[in-house]
Amino acid sequence: MKVLFHLIKYQGLVSHTLVKQSVRFLNTSLVRPKQAPQWGSKKGRKIVYIPTMALSPEAEKLLAPLREAVKEQGDLVRKLKTEKATEIEVKKAVAELKHRKKILEDKELELMPAQSKFDRSKMEDTLKRRFFYDQSFAIYGGVTGQFDFGPMGCAMKANILAAWRNYFVLEEHMLEVDCTALTPEPVLAASGHVERFADLMVKDLTNGECFRLDHLIKAHLEKVCAEKKTTEETKAECADIIVKLDGYGKEEMAAIMQKFNVVSPVTGNKLSEPIEFNLMFQTYIGPSGNLRGFLRPETAQGIFVNFKRLLEFNQGRLPFAAAQIGNSFRNEISPRSGLIRVREFTMAEIEHFCDPNDKSHPKFSRVADLEMILYSANNQMKGESAKPVKIGEAVSTGMVANETLGYFMARIHGFLIKIGVDPLRLRFRQHMGNEMAHYACDCWDAELLTSYGWIECVGCADRSAYDLTQHTKATGIKLCAEKKLPEPVIQQVTEVVPNKAPIGKAFKKEAKLVTDKLAALSLDEITAFENELKNGEASLELESSAVKLTPEMVTVKRYEKKVHVEEIIPSVIEPSFGIGRVMYALFEHNFKVREEDEQRTYFSMPPVIAPLKCAVLPLSNNPDFNGLVEKISEELTENDVSHKVDDSAGSIGRRYARTDEVAVPFGITIDFDSLKEPHTVTLRERDSTTQVRIEVDKVGEILRKLSTGRTTWAKVAEQFPKFEAQETKS
Amino acid sequence: MKVLFHLIKYQGLVSHTLVKQSVRFLNTSLVRPKQAPQWGSKKGRKIVYIPTMALSPEAEKLLAPLREAVKEQGDLVRKLKTEKATEIEVKKAVAELKHRKKILEDKELELMPAQSKFDRSKMEDTLKRRFFYDQSFAIYGGVTGQFDFGPMGCAMKANILAAWRNYFVLEEHMLEVDCTALTPEPVLAASGHVERFADLMVKDLTNGECFRLDHLIKAHLEKVCAEKKTTEETKAECADIIVKLDGYGKEEMAAIMQKFNVVSPVTGNKLSEPIEFNLMFQTYIGPSGNLRGFLRPETAQGIFVNFKRLLEFNQGRLPFAAAQIGNSFRNEISPRSGLIRVREFTMAEIEHFCDPNDKSHPKFSRVADLEMILYSANNQMKGESAKPVKIGEAVSTGMVANETLGYFMARIHGFLIKIGVDPLRLRFRQHMGNEMAHYACDCWDAELLTSYGWIECVGCADRSAYDLTQHTKATGIKLCAEKKLPEPVIQQVTEVVPNKAPIGKAFKKEAKLVTDKLAALSLDEITAFENELKNGEASLELESSAVKLTPEMVTVKRYEKKVHVEEIIPSVIEPSFGIGRVMYALFEHNFKVREEDEQRTYFSMPPVIAPLKCAVLPLSNNPDFNGLVEKISEELTENDVSHKVDDSAGSIGRRYARTDEVAVPFGITIDFDSLKEPHTVTLRERDSTTQVRIEVDKVGEILRKLSTGRTTWAKVAEQFPKFEAQETKS
Repeated sequence: MKVLFHLIKYQGLVSHTLVKQSVRFLNTSLVRPKQAPQWGSKKGRKIVYIPTMALSPEAEKLLAPLREAVKEQGDLVRKLKTEKATEIEVKKAVAELKHRKKILEDKELELMPAQSKFDRSKMEDTLKRRFFYDQSFAIYGGVTGQFDFGPMGCAMKANILAAWRNYFVLEEHMLEVDCTALTPEPVLAASGHVERFADLMVKDLTNGECFRLDHLIKAHLEKVCAEKKTTEETKAECADIIVKLDGYGKEEMAAIMQKFNVVSPVTGNKLSEPIEFNLMFQTYIGPSGNLRGFLRPETAQGIFVNFKRLLEFNQGRLPFAAAQIGNSFRNEISPRSGLIRVREFTMAEIEHFCDPNDKSHPKFSRVADLEMILYSANNQMKGESAKPVKIGEAVSTGMVANETLGYFMARIHGFLIKIGVDPLRLRFRQHMGNEMAHYACDCWDAELLTSYGWIECVGCADRSAYDLTQHTKATGIKLCAEKKLPEPVIQQVTEVVPNKAPIGKAFKKEAKLVTDKLAALSLDEITAFENELKNGEASLELESSAVKLTPEMVTVKRYEKKVHVEEIIPSVIEPSFGIGRVMYALFEHNFKVREEDEQRTYFSMPPVIAPLKCAVLPLSNNPDFNGLVEKISEELTENDVSHKVDDSAGSIGRRYARTDEVAVPFGITIDFDSLKEPHTVTLRERDSTTQVRIEVDKVGEILRKLSTGRTTWAKVAEQFPKFEAQETKS
Repeated sequence: MKVLFHLIKYQGLVSHTLVKQSVRFLNTSLVRPKQAPQWGSKKGRKIVYIPTMALSPEAEKLLAPLREAVKEQGDLVRKLKTEKATEIEVKKAVAELKHRKKILEDKELELMPAQSKFDRSKMEDTLKRRFFYDQSFAIYGGVTGQFDFGPMGCAMKANILAAWRNYFVLEEHMLEVDCTALTPEPVLAASGHVERFADLMVKDLTNGECFRLDHLIKAHLEKVCAEKKTTEETKAECADIIVKLDGYGKEEMAAIMQKFNVVSPVTGNKLSEPIEFNLMFQTYIGPSGNLRGFLRPETAQGIFVNFKRLLEFNQGRLPFAAAQIGNSFRNEISPRSGLIRVREFTMAEIEHFCDPNDKSHPKFSRVADLEMILYSANNQMKGESAKPVKIGEAVSTGMVANETLGYFMARIHGFLIKIGVDPLRLRFRQHMGNEMAHYACDCWDAELLTSYGWIECVGCADRSAYDLTQHTKATGIKLCAEKKLPEPVIQQVTEVVPNKAPIGKAFKKEAKLVTDKLAALSLDEITAFENELKNGEASLELESSAVKLTPEMVTVKRYEKKVHVEEIIPSVIEPSFGIGRVMYALFEHNFKVREEDEQRTYFSMPPVIAPLKCAVLPLSNNPDFNGLVEKISEELTENDVSHKVDDSAGSIGRRYARTDEVAVPFGITIDFDSLKEPHTVTLRERDSTTQVRIEVDKVGEILRKLSTGRTTWAKVAEQFPKFEAQETKS
């Protein structure tokens, strides 16, 4: 018996530990789906209805009070902020706002009419059985949070990355780099990761087993709720805590642990106090053990530290974008949800550097009319649903901060659709003020709806000058660009000129320290120093001592200087793709079951990212077919069409079913008619299962065009005679 | 003043520490070039002559006595082995053989007539200045042995990998996988890396600074030799040690340190005893700190642990090949020689699994006539030079062990030439018996000649069943394939059948242990056990105790079984590419200086791997050109031709010089004639600097064909009118 229930629900997107609240990665890819079964686990067969986005008027009526409740609370939060209420008051109000938002969104998903049903375990079974991907080192017992891509997954990933490179790097003339993953500590200290990239965990005090604290508390409270003896009051309290858990910090969670007597669910042993566990993998670079390093938790820092070289490569001109595809590593405390939360993953990141005072984009007009589903912070505060908005309008009304951000959102949208994302299951959600890192001006996540809920797959943030500023502070090397002024500007310069002879005589070895210090004085310090000097002597603080200077030793010069350029620290707009998450969503969005036969499943990926483009199937193992099979295979190779010859036993229908399962969009069958001149074969399309009869000489060219998207099946079907043989079932 | 000297010399390819002698990586990529300057170091301007391979009869005359000396020693080594001389005697003889080989090869390179001269610092300057690649984290002071690829290096690397994927994975229908780099300890313990993947180092006893021991001894002895007071006798001794250093182990090196009083070259402090330093980066997977892991030192293990899934994916059939492109990590003690020895690098590895008793290859006949430069173990033992040999002949005479190995050598050869390796600077060198890991049957390295000497860039080894056997031993999971027997075979089966009731009664909780142990007995053990039983009682060793069994408890059954398949452990043929090394050799082989102007340099990479395929250059910044520039750029994008619009100031000649430096093979200039209808532009080819006039409408198509190798410049030059304008120099 199948148990059908609605699993799709809104997943809180805000990270749950305060520890991380001002670090960048928060904004890009830290969705934490809850209660997800382990990969491949057979426990709990999940069948969910895939909703359409449209809601009926009746549904809207049911939602109205929930929307109103969100709006009311949203208004309160704004009011508190305007009135500069205490932090704790605001925090409480925000937690309540999130609570109400969650109830609304759950109900919304529940009320959406079902588009089709989706059986996750059936899909996962196919993915495992046909080795799209599977747990790493399984013969050694496996490691959680690590996956190996098999031939089909690997080919699909390579195709996605190639498409990404074409769509972004080549079309937009970006500067792609490939930086090392091993990163010395100072770099990640400057970026804030060493101090703040942590999750809270607790340890079993007896056996040392570790638990992610929020997961643990949630599971414990759910257990409490399920117990018969629990009072209604306590149940309500638990439910309330579970909803608000995301917003709680170390102390609050510790208090909950104490109150509910949370112990190890495995052994019943006592647990440690909450510990901030840094999620970076640590190692040592070089043999001495003195240079601590980490595996990068994101690829972006490699671009920032190369900013000067890249600017120079671009002949000093702004704007320009750099891009990087590469692996990042995060030592998750308890990875789950298959490809969605893993310890090693591929990212594709873009850092677009531009003038902070001019974030227009020359190609924005080309995308301005694109309609996208936007879920603005304002919508969220008011309890409204996500809405289709033209990106041009979103920028002109100020909903999206600037043209460049809007342009990239549109490009992200275009790319995701191109590779096979279901447009009905894609939205852009804006971060609300309280989710956003303090330096970011605006941030939108492309979220994809899966059976785990809305999953953040691509972040798109305006990160202002934060990163370049941090690395400048840490290294003393100015990471800035020169901007030509519209006309030269006269600058007032105040300079302390040391008189070297008396300084050298007075301070000997320390003379250089003194002159360096003088050169580093700020304008205010110079003025103060000058005033002090008028009294015959002024003191100057060196590293560990202070010295006295007399008026003969220095001259303060003031003059005017004509300046033609100004130094600016560029703003950074950052689209950041989590490739594994996008892939997982693609699997869900493209997993289909044949109407006529529930056992026949297939993936409807577009040809451009399908792992293989074509299967070549001789009708039987009659050796007469060999020549044609070889000829066609070579023809396809010549045309860069990846393919597989399947001359295994089994009916054509059965073999097609096998290729459908691995998303092969086209199939060529060589039958006895093929042996007659002119040689022809049948060509079949996966989604429609329709076939045409086509000359062997044309096969290579037609398949090249089909698999690169230069022609469509509809056009091919018009051009060639339809072939009507029934697929025989095995 | 330029100092010209011959730097190219033979580099000992055998790893110098005994520690590693039976581990696989030895065979693939551990060339250790000596005395190489640091990357980008301006010290010592190296100008070398690039030799042709041909030697004159006069040169051969000079070499004759050296060849004879090698042959004599080679014969001695063989004789000692045949006569089963002591290990120490053989080792001494081999060391002397290597010494003589080195003298011969140095002389060979010296006597080869120069093809052209090569200025390494000039090339490195270009690579740095145009950001092909540069040291990582330079603004933080940089980390040795880590490099970031800039836009040009990254694009070239991506193109090489795409070409590799087409040439190997797609054309040969390999199963590509993408496995994680983080590897738990047990996997690398089984492969032998935990125990043996180490280099010898010493530490400064006062400040902890580390030195790679062989480098240190060599530098010290060279210093001793250079001192005036050193006697001729000591000098000879030092020279002898330096040559033989590669073959010395821990104790021998410790003795040398003592004898020559080797101290820290930096501080003069005393040094520790030699330490075996494992080159893998260590970390911990998961938060508990209990699961030790390493960053993989090669990608191959990911394939081996997935063998069962891959075999199943291939429907149980042999042979098949799996491939993987990915990063590996080695914590080198003192990295040097730029891209050649680094801590993080990209590999592309193939593991071809085949029947150990049938290593024929169905496509071998296609490559049999290919002539390659082979440097067989026999040539090396006899003091002969590398020789052109047809691969078919090499296999039929047994020089190359089998067809599959030969086929891959030919394919490696084809690939390297395709991407731009100079065929005159490519040879395949066979490992000599004493270099080869004990399990390998045959191993050939594709070596590329650079200014650092012959560098091993691709290994190609027949690794027999070693890896699968090791992982089977470690996990208890059989990594084997089933082979259908030509006809069924009758097998004698001997089985111990436990009688459960008496065993359960006698051993209670331990009953399962007893039956498991009984099932695991070998044939000999069963016989012995049965004999013992005849005396009324037989003992059985359990984990920690022994038990006595009586005849009622067991029955020994003997019967015949008809078997249709046999289990075989496949042999593995492994081509393994070091992508960074191949890239470095490509830079050297393609770095050219214009005859008419020494300041004008360019890289002559083939279009297929050139970072960008085309530059679009408006003659001036006249706005009338904008429309055409944009149209051409879009046309090129549409045809997947990566390109750059260079509308910067500067003459056309100067801008061409800039694009030549980054290997752009084609340039389109839009001039005032372009504005007339029909619109035409000039198209220029980088190496010849010749130009044609071509219609704008044809530009996209022609460039697509040129940049994918579907047409050649020669054909284009015939088809379109030549354009004769002189390039203006800046």
